[in-house]
Amino acid sequence: MSPETIPELDPVIHSQVRLAVLSILIASESAEFGYLKERTGATDGNLSVHLTKLEKSGFVLIRKTFSGKKPLTTVSITEKGREAFEKYLKTLEQIVRSEKSK
Amino acid sequence: MSPETIPELDPVIHSQVRLAVLSILIASESAEFGYLKERTGATDGNLSVHLTKLEKSGFVLIRKTFSGKKPLTTVSITEKGREAFEKYLKTLEQIVRSEKSK
Repeated sequence: MSPETIPELDPVIHSQVRLAVLSILIASESAEFGYLKERTGATDGNLSVHLTKLEKSGFVLIRKTFSGKKPLTTVSITEKGREAFEKYLKTLEQIVRSEKSK
Repeated sequence: MSPETIPELDPVIHSQVRLAVLSILIASESAEFGYLKERTGATDGNLSVHLTKLEKSGFVLIRKTFSGKKPLTTVSITEKGREAFEKYLKTLEQIVRSEKSK
């Protein structure tokens, strides 16, 4: 009998920056681009790429508005993103405790 | 005042396969190459690359012996690997709970 294959982590979430972004959004629903940049330590370009990837997966919504004349980018988590994040954490727990629970 | 930058996850551990390998070794001290292959679902070549990376970081020891005429590769975790894994989990917890604990 073969031992069970360890479940796969969602590659969209399993990235330092994207995991951090989702963790922030899980708790605060939405956040400004500048705030996410400071918290993650990512550059503008790098953060943009990660946000686009999350948006394409339907995990976040990106809204561009203005605060006076200043452009404002607000990122919020979707229900799908919330579910994917919870599933990711469960899978992670399963991997990390993989042998102990057997 | 700037918000705190989220801590960085050890990139050597933050990989689906390497995380799975270390999780197994944390619980069972050592494991055969074939067993790790089945559990992770990785190919021979892919698993070898990941194990070499873990070995170069001093996180695992790879020992090649024979079981009769059959070559046997045994991988075991080092104290450094154990510490790095524990630190990784703590950092992960910090990221995932980053906003909630503030």
